[in-house]
Amino acid sequence: MYFNVEKVVYEGPSSKNLLAYKFYNPEEEIAGKKMRDWFRFAVAYWHTFNSRGEDPFGSATFERPWFKKDPMDTAFAKVDALFEFCEKTGVEYFTFHDRDLAHEGLTLRESNKILDKVVEKIKEYMKSSNVKLLWGTANLFSHPRYAQGAATSPNPLVFSYAASQVKKMLDVTKELGGLGYVLWGGREGYDNLLLTDSALEEKLFARFLEMVVEYKERIGFNGVLMIEPKPKEPTKHQYDFDASTVLYFLKKHNLFEHFKLNIEANHATLAGHTFAHELRVARLNGKLGSIDANRGDLLLGWDTDQFPTDVYETTFAMYEVLENNGLDCGFNFDAKVRRASIDPEDIVYAHVSSMDAFALGLKLAVKLREKVKPMIEERYSEYNSEIGMKILEGKTTLDELSSYVEDLTDVRVKSLKQELLEMVINDVIFGGR
Amino acid sequence: MYFNVEKVVYEGPSSKNLLAYKFYNPEEEIAGKKMRDWFRFAVAYWHTFNSRGEDPFGSATFERPWFKKDPMDTAFAKVDALFEFCEKTGVEYFTFHDRDLAHEGLTLRESNKILDKVVEKIKEYMKSSNVKLLWGTANLFSHPRYAQGAATSPNPLVFSYAASQVKKMLDVTKELGGLGYVLWGGREGYDNLLLTDSALEEKLFARFLEMVVEYKERIGFNGVLMIEPKPKEPTKHQYDFDASTVLYFLKKHNLFEHFKLNIEANHATLAGHTFAHELRVARLNGKLGSIDANRGDLLLGWDTDQFPTDVYETTFAMYEVLENNGLDCGFNFDAKVRRASIDPEDIVYAHVSSMDAFALGLKLAVKLREKVKPMIEERYSEYNSEIGMKILEGKTTLDELSSYVEDLTDVRVKSLKQELLEMVINDVIFGGR
Amino acid sequence: MYFNVEKVVYEGPSSKNLLAYKFYNPEEEIAGKKMRDWFRFAVAYWHTFNSRGEDPFGSATFERPWFKKDPMDTAFAKVDALFEFCEKTGVEYFTFHDRDLAHEGLTLRESNKILDKVVEKIKEYMKSSNVKLLWGTANLFSHPRYAQGAATSPNPLVFSYAASQVKKMLDVTKELGGLGYVLWGGREGYDNLLLTDSALEEKLFARFLEMVVEYKERIGFNGVLMIEPKPKEPTKHQYDFDASTVLYFLKKHNLFEHFKLNIEANHATLAGHTFAHELRVARLNGKLGSIDANRGDLLLGWDTDQFPTDVYETTFAMYEVLENNGLDCGFNFDAKVRRASIDPEDIVYAHVSSMDAFALGLKLAVKLREKVKPMIEERYSEYNSEIGMKILEGKTTLDELSSYVEDLTDVRVKSLKQELLEMVINDVIFGGR
Amino acid sequence: MYFNVEKVVYEGPSSKNLLAYKFYNPEEEIAGKKMRDWFRFAVAYWHTFNSRGEDPFGSATFERPWFKKDPMDTAFAKVDALFEFCEKTGVEYFTFHDRDLAHEGLTLRESNKILDKVVEKIKEYMKSSNVKLLWGTANLFSHPRYAQGAATSPNPLVFSYAASQVKKMLDVTKELGGLGYVLWGGREGYDNLLLTDSALEEKLFARFLEMVVEYKERIGFNGVLMIEPKPKEPTKHQYDFDASTVLYFLKKHNLFEHFKLNIEANHATLAGHTFAHELRVARLNGKLGSIDANRGDLLLGWDTDQFPTDVYETTFAMYEVLENNGLDCGFNFDAKVRRASIDPEDIVYAHVSSMDAFALGLKLAVKLREKVKPMIEERYSEYNSEIGMKILEGKTTLDELSSYVEDLTDVRVKSLKQELLEMVINDVIFGGR
Ligand SMILES: [Co+2]
Ligand SMILES: [Co+2]
Ligand SMILES: [Co+2]
Ligand SMILES: [Co+2]
Ligand SMILES: [Co+2]
Ligand SMILES: [Co+2]
Ligand SMILES: [Co+2]
Ligand SMILES: [Co+2]
Repeated sequence: MYFNVEKVVYEGPSSKNLLAYKFYNPEEEIAGKKMRDWFRFAVAYWHTFNSRGEDPFGSATFERPWFKKDPMDTAFAKVDALFEFCEKTGVEYFTFHDRDLAHEGLTLRESNKILDKVVEKIKEYMKSSNVKLLWGTANLFSHPRYAQGAATSPNPLVFSYAASQVKKMLDVTKELGGLGYVLWGGREGYDNLLLTDSALEEKLFARFLEMVVEYKERIGFNGVLMIEPKPKEPTKHQYDFDASTVLYFLKKHNLFEHFKLNIEANHATLAGHTFAHELRVARLNGKLGSIDANRGDLLLGWDTDQFPTDVYETTFAMYEVLENNGLDCGFNFDAKVRRASIDPEDIVYAHVSSMDAFALGLKLAVKLREKVKPMIEERYSEYNSEIGMKILEGKTTLDELSSYVEDLTDVRVKSLKQELLEMVINDVIFGGR
Repeated sequence: MYFNVEKVVYEGPSSKNLLAYKFYNPEEEIAGKKMRDWFRFAVAYWHTFNSRGEDPFGSATFERPWFKKDPMDTAFAKVDALFEFCEKTGVEYFTFHDRDLAHEGLTLRESNKILDKVVEKIKEYMKSSNVKLLWGTANLFSHPRYAQGAATSPNPLVFSYAASQVKKMLDVTKELGGLGYVLWGGREGYDNLLLTDSALEEKLFARFLEMVVEYKERIGFNGVLMIEPKPKEPTKHQYDFDASTVLYFLKKHNLFEHFKLNIEANHATLAGHTFAHELRVARLNGKLGSIDANRGDLLLGWDTDQFPTDVYETTFAMYEVLENNGLDCGFNFDAKVRRASIDPEDIVYAHVSSMDAFALGLKLAVKLREKVKPMIEERYSEYNSEIGMKILEGKTTLDELSSYVEDLTDVRVKSLKQELLEMVINDVIFGGR
Repeated sequence: MYFNVEKVVYEGPSSKNLLAYKFYNPEEEIAGKKMRDWFRFAVAYWHTFNSRGEDPFGSATFERPWFKKDPMDTAFAKVDALFEFCEKTGVEYFTFHDRDLAHEGLTLRESNKILDKVVEKIKEYMKSSNVKLLWGTANLFSHPRYAQGAATSPNPLVFSYAASQVKKMLDVTKELGGLGYVLWGGREGYDNLLLTDSALEEKLFARFLEMVVEYKERIGFNGVLMIEPKPKEPTKHQYDFDASTVLYFLKKHNLFEHFKLNIEANHATLAGHTFAHELRVARLNGKLGSIDANRGDLLLGWDTDQFPTDVYETTFAMYEVLENNGLDCGFNFDAKVRRASIDPEDIVYAHVSSMDAFALGLKLAVKLREKVKPMIEERYSEYNSEIGMKILEGKTTLDELSSYVEDLTDVRVKSLKQELLEMVINDVIFGGR
Repeated sequence: MYFNVEKVVYEGPSSKNLLAYKFYNPEEEIAGKKMRDWFRFAVAYWHTFNSRGEDPFGSATFERPWFKKDPMDTAFAKVDALFEFCEKTGVEYFTFHDRDLAHEGLTLRESNKILDKVVEKIKEYMKSSNVKLLWGTANLFSHPRYAQGAATSPNPLVFSYAASQVKKMLDVTKELGGLGYVLWGGREGYDNLLLTDSALEEKLFARFLEMVVEYKERIGFNGVLMIEPKPKEPTKHQYDFDASTVLYFLKKHNLFEHFKLNIEANHATLAGHTFAHELRVARLNGKLGSIDANRGDLLLGWDTDQFPTDVYETTFAMYEVLENNGLDCGFNFDAKVRRASIDPEDIVYAHVSSMDAFALGLKLAVKLREKVKPMIEERYSEYNSEIGMKILEGKTTLDELSSYVEDLTDVRVKSLKQELLEMVINDVIFGGR
C-alpha cells in the first residue's frame, strides 16, 4: 500500500472532512451530463509516478516507495501504485508516454519488449478495474538523440527512431483502448534560428504527421489525434507555439481534419494568452479535444505545471468546456507536486483539491452562463438590424456603408460593463453564503 | 445628481440585490476592530473624477457630467461629485494630488490660489459630512517640466518647483486633516543610464526628502509620510523600485524613521513580486503605512490599475494587514474603470465589488490564519531545540555546528505540504456552502 | 525651415562628421540591388509630425514649430515639415493614417474634405520632389467610437464608419501612388473574453476584409494589401496576435491570396518572438510585404517603438530580407523619439543612425550568409541519403522507418555549434578593424 | 589531451584565424592597467567540467572524455581538464563549489576527505602553473537536504550542515589563495509565502552570515566575501533578489562592511534590471566585488547562463567597471554551452569569443567615456549655480525654494538627447572601419 489514506469520497459541501470531495460527485448530473463524463479526470504517469523531484538546481527529493533497485521491479510497482491511486481517489483515467512505463533497452526492439511486459500488467489490472487510458503518447524529447528535434531532427535516423516510437505507442494506445493520442513536440522547434533550415524542418514535421495519420487509419485506431501547443521550453521556440499557430500549420499541410488540440493551461500563459483564450480558439475551430489541467505561476517564466486550484480559473475554463458540450477526451492532470512535497499523500491532496476545484468551477460556470448570455445578446443586438444583417451576410460594400454614415454626427458604443460583470462573477461565486 | 443609483448599503450574503454590500458592514467587529477601521476605504480623485478615458492609442471616452466648459466650474462640480459618490457608496475617505482638484495657473502662486478655492469648498462639505482625507500628494510627473525628474531633475529650478508643490500640499493636507502624505516618484528614475549621474540624482532625492521631513515637523503635521514604490513606467527604471529598494535608500540617507510605505498591488507585480510579498516586506520592517488597492493583469506589461475583485488576492493581502493589526492610513482605490466603461454607474459597481471583495477577504483571512499558524509553528518547531536556540541567539560558530553534523548520515526536512495548504485555502473559502 | 541641420549625405565609414551616413549610400549596389531599392526608408507621419510627446503619465512636451493655432495651418505646415525633413535626410518615402494629415470634421463628409485639401498640397510637392508614399492606412483606433473595435465593433454603424474611412484612404493611397495599404487592428480584439462573441467578431472581421479586397480591385489599386500583427495593447488581446495567427485567419476565410504582412519589430517581441522569427514566418509563407522598423525594450512590457540602432538586430533582420530578395514595400520607421527629446534635430539623429544601422546590417548580412549557408548545408546533409529523400518525398511509412532503426544501438546528432556561430558573427561584424 | 585545439593566442584584429584573440591581449595596457588585470577571467567548474547537458526535459548529452567510471578518477581527470583548458585558452583563473570537485561521501567528514584529495592535486598543478583560484563557494542547493533552504532551513541540522560546508570551503579557498568567497543563496527564499516565517528565516540568514564573518576573520582569510543576488529560480522568490535588496539586508543586520556583491548579468535581467544597472548600484555603494559574466535570453523566463558575446552589452558593462577602476576579484564565466554543443571544442569557442567581446568592450568603453562625460557635465551644469549648490549642500528649505519659483512662468529642461547618444555609440563602435 503506497498511499496512506482512506478512499476519498463525495461528502458534499458541508463536510468537515478535509480529505473528501465537497463538489466532485461523479454521479451528479449537470447540464445534461454526469460529472464523470464532463471530466474524465486522468492522472499523468510522468509527474506522479516517475518524477523524483529534481529541478535544474537540485537532485531527487522523492523517495517513492515504488522505486525499487531493479528497473523492471520499479516498472511493475508503478503500475500497482497507479491502480491503488485511482482506487483511492476516484480518478478514472491515466495518461502516459512510452518511457514513463519503463526504461529503454539497448535497442528499440528491446525497449518495446520491456514496454510490452508492463502493458501486459496494465491490461491485467484493467480487467477488474474501471480505470481506463485517456490517451497515450511517446517521449520524443528526453533522450539525447532528440537534442535537436525528433520529427525535425537534422538526422533522418533520429526521425525514424521517433517514427518508430510513435508507431509502437499508437499500437499500445489502441490496445489499451485509449480515447486519444497526443503529440507534444518538445524538441520540435529551434534553439538557433540562423542555423535552422525552417522550410525543411516544417516539411519534415508535416511528413511525420502524415505518416501518423496513415498508420492510425490503417490500424483502425478510433481515438482522436491531438497536438499539444507550447511556445518555448525546452527549445527557445517551438513550432507548435499556440493553438492558432498549430491550426495554421495543419491547414497549410492539409492535415486539418485529422488533428484536434490538447490545450494546457500553463502553455497558454507561457504564450501570452489566458487558459480560457486558448480553449476558446480551440473550441471555435472545432478542435477542443482534451485539456492538460494545470496552472502556471505568472511571475515565473517557466512551465511550473502546478495543480489547478484557483476557482476563478476553473470556472472560466469550464465555461468554454460547457459551451463545447464537453471534450473528446478529458482532463489530464499534467501537474506535479512541488519538489518539497515529498510524501505520497501530497499527491492525493493535489488531485483531490484540483478535481473539486473543477467540479465547483463547472457548477459556477453553469450559473455564470445564465447571467452572461443575456449581456452578450444585448451587446450585439444591433446586428439584428438591416445594416447589421447585410454586413454579416456579405451583401454590402464599402461604398454603401459609407453612404450610411457619412453625414452622421454621432456614432457611439454603449458601456462594455466589465466592472458590472466582475460584480456578477463574485456574486455567482460567493453570493448566498 | 451625478450617480444614478440608490445609496448602497449592507444587506448581507443572502441578499438578492446585486448593488448591495454582502460582506462589507462598517459596523461589524472583526478581530478586535470595526470593519470601517480595518479599511478606511478611499476613492482616488485622479482616476475617478479626473480621468477622461484616454489611453496611449486613443482619446477621451468619458463624458462625465461634472466636466463643464469653464475649468473652475469643473473643479467645483468634481467636489460635488466626490461627496455625492461617497454618500452613495459609503466610501469614507478620498485621496488627491494638487493638480487633481484644479488646473494650473500661469505661475505657481496663481495655481495655489486656484487650489485654495477648491480646498475651501471641500472644507465646507466636510463640516456636514463624515467624508475625510486619507492622504494628500503632489503631482510631480504630468507637467513637461518634470520630463526628466522632479526631485532628481537636472534643473534646480524644476527641483524647486517640485519642492514648492510639496510644501503647498503638506499645508493643504494638514489643513484637511489628512492621515498621511504620499510621495510617488513617477519621474524619479532614469530613461538612459549612461546619460545619468546616478550619484548626484540620489543625493538630490535624499536632500528633497530631508526638506520634506523638516517642513512637516516645523508645521506640526502629524500624519505619516509615505513613499510609494514602483519599478518602472513612466521612466525606464524608477529609483523607488520596490519596498526593499526604498528601505535601503532610507537607511542609507538616515531617513528611515521618517517614512513608511504605501504599497500598491500592481506596482508589486510589475516589480516581479506578489502583492502579499511587498506587504510582508513592509510589515516586517514596521513600514506598512497604507495600501493602494488595485490589481494588475499579469499578461500585460504595464500598470493597468484594475479594481481588485479577486478574493484569493484580497484574502492574502488581508492576511498581512491582519498580522500588522491594521494600517496607519487605509485602502486607497488607485484603480480605474476601463476606457469602455463610460457610465458613471460603472464607477459605483467597481468600488462596491472591490470593497466587498476586501471585506470577504478579511473574514477569510481570519479563518485562514487559524489554520496556517499551527502549520507554521510545527514547521519551525525544531528551532526550540538547544542547537536551534544557540543559532538564533548567535551563540555558536561554524566550528561548533560542524561538530554537530559531520558524522551524521541522514539530515532531512519534512514535506512542506503546499498542496495541503491549497486544499485548506479552498476549504476555508468555499467550505460549508 | 524646421530642421536646423545641413543636408545629411553619405561620407563613408571614415568620416569624422557625426551627422553623415557612414554606410547608407543609396546608389551603392549590394547583392544585385541598389541600397535605395533594398530599403525604401519611410518616415511615419504619426510619430514624427503629429506626436506631442504625451505619455500615460504626462502631457505634451514637444512644441514643434509646425504646430500652429489653426488646425488647418498646422496641417499644411506639417506637409512642409515632411518634405523638408525628407530633403534634409534623404528619406524617400512616407506613411500616414488619414487622421495624421488633419483633424476630423463634424461629419465624415467634412473630414474627407479637409483631408482632400492636405492631399492636394502633398500632390503639389510630389511633382517637384522624389518623395513618395510607401503605404497609407486609416486610423481606426483613436476615436472613442472605436473603443470596442472598428471592424469588430458591436455597433454596425461603427463598422460602417470604419469601412468608410478605409474606402477613402484606399482612394487617397491610390491617388498618391502608394505601394501598399496597411491594416493595423489596434482595437480589433477583446478586453473581456466573457463578454465577447468571438465567433461573431471573427466573422465581422472577415467580412470587412472581403469588402476591402473587393473595393481595392474595383478601383484598380495595384499596391499590396497588408495586415500588421500585434499581440496586445491597446486591447488586452488582439486578433492579429502574430504572423502565424494572421495567416491562419486569412487561410480560414479564403483571404490568403489577397494580403501580405507588415512586420513590426516591437510587435514581434511583445508576442514573445524575435523580430527575425516573425520575418522568417512571413518570408517562408511568401507574405513578407513590408517592415515597421523599430525596436522594443525587452525589460518593458509595452510598445516603446524605439528607433532601431542595434546592429546585431539589423543584421539578423537584413538576413531575412536578403533571403526574401527585398520587400514589396519598404522600411517604415514606426518609431518615436523619446518624450524628453524635444528638439526637432533629435528626429534627424534618430532617422540617420537607424538608416545607417540598417545599411551596415545589410552589408554584414551578406557576409554572414556566406559563412552560415555552408554550416546549414552540412547540418542537414544527411537528408540527401536514400532514407532522407524517402522521408521528404512522403514515400515511406512508420513501419518502414521502424525497420531501419529498431536494431540500431547508437543514433546521434552532431554538435549544433551555436558558440562557433556566435564567434563567426562577431568575426563578421568586428573582424578586420 | 581533452581539447583538440592549438593554444589560442592574441593575433590582433586583422587576423584571419578564427580561433585567435583579436582584442584580448593580456599584456596590453589600457586606462592604466594591463588587460589581464582588468579582467582576471575565470572558468567555472560547474558548467564547464561538471555539467552533463541535462535540462528539465532531457537527460545528459555531454559525454566528456574526463567522465570516468570511478568517481574519484573523474574528479582527478577534471583537474587535468581544467589545467589543460586554461593552458590552451589563456584563462588564468577558475571558480568552484565544494561539490564540483568531487562527490559526497556518506558523512560530511568523508566528503571533506574526498575533497581534500582533489584539492591536493590542484595545489600540485598550481606550483607549476600560473592558473589561480578566483573565488570559492559551497553548494548549498543541490542536495535534497536543502530543498527548503540551507541557512534558512526549518531544520537546524540542515543549517548546521550548510555552516559546516561553508567552514570547509573557507579553509580550502584560503589554502588555494582565492581572491574571494561567494555566497549564492539558491534555496534561501520561499516557495510558499503563507507557510514561511519570514522574520525567523531572515534572522537565521543574518546569523549565518555573522558566523561566516567571524570564521573568516579568525582564520585570517584576506579575500573578499561576496553575496550574489538572484531574484527567483530555483525558489519562487529568493531573499537576495537584487543588489539593493541585499544591501538593505546587510545594512539592517550590521553586516554591511563585511560583504561585497558578485553581480551576474542574467540574474540582473531576471530581476527586471539591465546588467549595467546592477553594476552601477553595486559600484555607487562601493560594493562591486566581482562579476559573473554571462547573458540571458530576454524572451525566455529562466536563467539561461549563455556566454556573453554581445559587444553592446560588454561595452556598457565595462563602462561601469572602468568607472570602478576594476574589480576586487574578476570575471567568472558562469555560463554554459548549449545542450546540443557536445564537443569539448565548443567550450573553447565560447570562452574565447566571450573574452574577446569583453576586451573589445573595454576598448570601446574607454572611447565612449570620452564622449559621454562631457554630455553628462553639460546636462547637470546648472547645479553649479547658487541655488543648485544650496540644494546639494542641504542648506535650504521648501519655503526658500518656493520663493525662487512661485512667480516664474517658464521652467523647462533641455532635450535629453538619447537619440544623439545612440548615434555616438554606434559611431564609437563602428566608426572608422
Ligand atoms: Co501538457
Ligand atoms: Co506544462
Ligand atoms: Co498607486
Ligand atoms: Co498603478
Ligand atoms: Co507598426
Ligand atoms: Co509599435
Ligand atoms: Co552566477
Ligand atoms: Co545564472
